[in-house]
Amino acid sequence: MVVGVVGGGQLARMMIQEAIPLGIEIRLLVTSPDDPAALVGPRFAVGSAQSADDLRRFAESVDVVTFDHEVVHLSALDALERDGHLLRPGAGTFGTVADKVRMRAALGDAGIPTPPAQVVTSAEEVAALVANGGGHVLKLAHGGYDGRGTFFVDTPDQSSRLLGEVRPGTVVLVEPRLDLLAELAVIVVRSPDGSHVVYDPVSTIQIDGQCRRVDAPATQSDDVVDLARGLARRAAEAVDAVGVLAVEMFLTAEGLVVNELAARPHNTGHHTLDAAVTSQFANHLRAVTGLPLGSPDLHSRAVTANLIGVDGSRDPAALLGDGLAVDPAAHIHLYGKAVRHDRKLGHVTVCDDDHDRAVDRAARVVEALGGQEVPR
Amino acid sequence: MVVGVVGGGQLARMMIQEAIPLGIEIRLLVTSPDDPAALVGPRFAVGSAQSADDLRRFAESVDVVTFDHEVVHLSALDALERDGHLLRPGAGTFGTVADKVRMRAALGDAGIPTPPAQVVTSAEEVAALVANGGGHVLKLAHGGYDGRGTFFVDTPDQSSRLLGEVRPGTVVLVEPRLDLLAELAVIVVRSPDGSHVVYDPVSTIQIDGQCRRVDAPATQSDDVVDLARGLARRAAEAVDAVGVLAVEMFLTAEGLVVNELAARPHNTGHHTLDAAVTSQFANHLRAVTGLPLGSPDLHSRAVTANLIGVDGSRDPAALLGDGLAVDPAAHIHLYGKAVRHDRKLGHVTVCDDDHDRAVDRAARVVEALGGQEVPR
Repeated sequence: MVVGVVGGGQLARMMIQEAIPLGIEIRLLVTSPDDPAALVGPRFAVGSAQSADDLRRFAESVDVVTFDHEVVHLSALDALERDGHLLRPGAGTFGTVADKVRMRAALGDAGIPTPPAQVVTSAEEVAALVANGGGHVLKLAHGGYDGRGTFFVDTPDQSSRLLGEVRPGTVVLVEPRLDLLAELAVIVVRSPDGSHVVYDPVSTIQIDGQCRRVDAPATQSDDVVDLARGLARRAAEAVDAVGVLAVEMFLTAEGLVVNELAARPHNTGHHTLDAAVTSQFANHLRAVTGLPLGSPDLHSRAVTANLIGVDGSRDPAALLGDGLAVDPAAHIHLYGKAVRHDRKLGHVTVCDDDHDRAVDRAARVVEALGGQEVPR
Repeated sequence: MVVGVVGGGQLARMMIQEAIPLGIEIRLLVTSPDDPAALVGPRFAVGSAQSADDLRRFAESVDVVTFDHEVVHLSALDALERDGHLLRPGAGTFGTVADKVRMRAALGDAGIPTPPAQVVTSAEEVAALVANGGGHVLKLAHGGYDGRGTFFVDTPDQSSRLLGEVRPGTVVLVEPRLDLLAELAVIVVRSPDGSHVVYDPVSTIQIDGQCRRVDAPATQSDDVVDLARGLARRAAEAVDAVGVLAVEMFLTAEGLVVNELAARPHNTGHHTLDAAVTSQFANHLRAVTGLPLGSPDLHSRAVTANLIGVDGSRDPAALLGDGLAVDPAAHIHLYGKAVRHDRKLGHVTVCDDDHDRAVDRAARVVEALGGQEVPR
C-alpha cells in the first residue's frame, strides 16, 4: 500500500522515518526537491497542493492520500473522494478542520466548549467589535498555522492597520483575549473503524501563538488532564477523524476550551518519537493504512523544545556537533530547512523524570544549535 | 558530510532511518535498486563491493566510506585509503576484522582470550585434526556470516565431504567444539579520537550459528557481564575500531572467550533502536562523521527476536496487520526482503521488565509474521 502525503515538510519527513521499520512505502507531493521530506524520501512528485490537477495526478499514483499541511485545494479533495480515491482523513473531516468557522461549529454541535468568538467578514464589523474596548484576537478562518494568521489587537488603530492588509471577503474570527492559566494539547489517533488511542495530554508553552516547548505528560492537575483527554476523544468523534487529530486547548479560570484542531501529525506530539512506545507518526501511518494502532504509552517523562530560527544565525546542521556535545542523552531532530527568522528548524527532546532539569537540558541544546531562547 | 555505505542490506536501511533526525546524508553502493536500503534511500549507486573500480567511483562521490557487510574487495580499500579517501572503520581495521586469522591474532596480541584454534589450508590437515576424535567446528577465514561459512563436524567422513566443496587454498580455522554455557555480545562504538561508549552486554540465543534472540541486558552474573564489557572495550582498542565494533563471546566453564568481531552495526544491537537512548545506528553515524557519541543507556529491558524466513511462507509485509494486532506495544522492523528459508527478514523488539513475558511476547509476534519459531 503506497501512502501519498500531500506536502513535504518536517511532518512528512518524520512520517518517512517511521515508515521504514513498517515497510510502508511513502510518496510525496512537494513544492521542491529541497523540501525537508523530499531530501530523505526516495519517491516524490513536484506540484502544488493548491492545484486540482496536481492533486488528481498525485492521488492516481498512490493508494491512500494523507496530509502534511492544510494549505490544500479543499474542493478538489471532495471531487477526488467522489471519484473513489481514498483520503484519510476524509475530505469532509479535512475541510471542516481546515476552516475555523466550520471546525468551531462542529465542536459546538458536539457540546465541546470553545472560546467565545464572532465571525465577521468586513473591516467595519471588526472595528465595531474592537471599539468596545478590551484586548482581542483576530484569527483568519483559513490558512493560518504556527502563529501566522493570528493577530493580537488592543486598539481600533491596530485593527484597521491589520485589516488594510487582509483581502476583502476574508472570514475572520474575533475573540476576546482570554486570561490563560495554561495551554494543553492532546494527540488522538483514530482508525477508519472508529477504534482509537489517546496520548497523554501535554502542556504547551507558546509565544505569539507559536509553540516553543511541550511538557509531557501535562503538568496540570489530574482533573484537568482527564478532562482534556475526554474532550480530545469527543472532538475526534465529532469530526470523524482518521489518523492523528491534534486538539489544542486553553485552560482558563472557567475551565478548558478547545481552541484549535489539526488533522495531521502535530508539533505537540513530537516527543512521542523518543518518549512513547509508538510515535504519533507511526500511529498516523497505521491508521491511514488500516493497520492496528500501537500503544501510546510514554516510557519516559519528556520535554520537547522547538528549534526556532534567528535571523542571521548559522545553519543548525553546522552546529550539530556543538548541540550533541552539550547533552549525550538529548534527541536532536533537524528538518533540513534553511534558516529563517521564526521558522521551525528542528526540535530537541529530553527524557528526564526531573521536569525542571529536562527543561534546562533541552533549552541548552536548542541554544547550542543557534535557536531562539526556550522559555524556562 | 555525505556518508557512503558499502552495501544496501538491513543495516544500511536502519542507518538511513537513524540518519534522518540528524540530517546526515547517506549514499549507498548497492547490488540492486531492490536492496532493502535502496528501497528507502534516495541516493544510491548500483555496483559491486568486490569491484575495485566500483569502490573507487563510489568513494569519490562521498565524504566518508563505511560498511553494511564484509564481502568487500579488501586490497582495494587499502589503495583508496592510500589515495586519501576517508574510510571509517579504516582499511586496516576492516581488513583485520574480516579475516578470522588476522582478527584472532590481533586479539591474542592484546591478551584477549579466544577459542583454541588451528589454522589449516589443506583438506589433509583438517582430516588429520578431525581424526583425533571429538567434535570440531570448521570456520572459513573469509566471507562467513550469519552461520554461513561455519560447519560442525563430528566424523572424518563429514569433514572430507565438506572439504570437497571448499576451494583449494581456502584458509580454515579448526576448533574443538566447546561446551558453551551461554553466548554474549557487546556493542562498542568508538570515535576517531578514541573516545567510546559501550552498550550493556546482551545474551544471544543462537541456532546453528544464527542469532535468533537477544536478551538485553545480558542475564548472566554481574561478574561475567563486567568481564564482557571490559573485553569488548579492549578488543575495540586492539583493532583500532571506528564506529560500531560488535564483539561476540562464548561463556564456557573456563570463562569468557571472544569468538567473533564485526566492524559495523550488528544484529545483536538491534534492540538499541527501541530500548536505548541512542541506537547503535545513530552512534555509528556519529562516530564515522566525527560527531560526539550519544548515551548508550537502556531506558527499558528488552528482548529482540529475529524474523527468520520459512520456505513457502507468506511475505511478512502481507502479515503485518496480524503481527501488529498480536501486541500493540511490540516494535516490528521489516527489512523489505523477499522470503527465503533461513533468511533474516526482520526483527521484533519488546520492552518489558518481565523477561519471560518479553520473550513470549516477541516470539508470538514473530510467529504471527510467519517467521521460524523463536527459542523460549
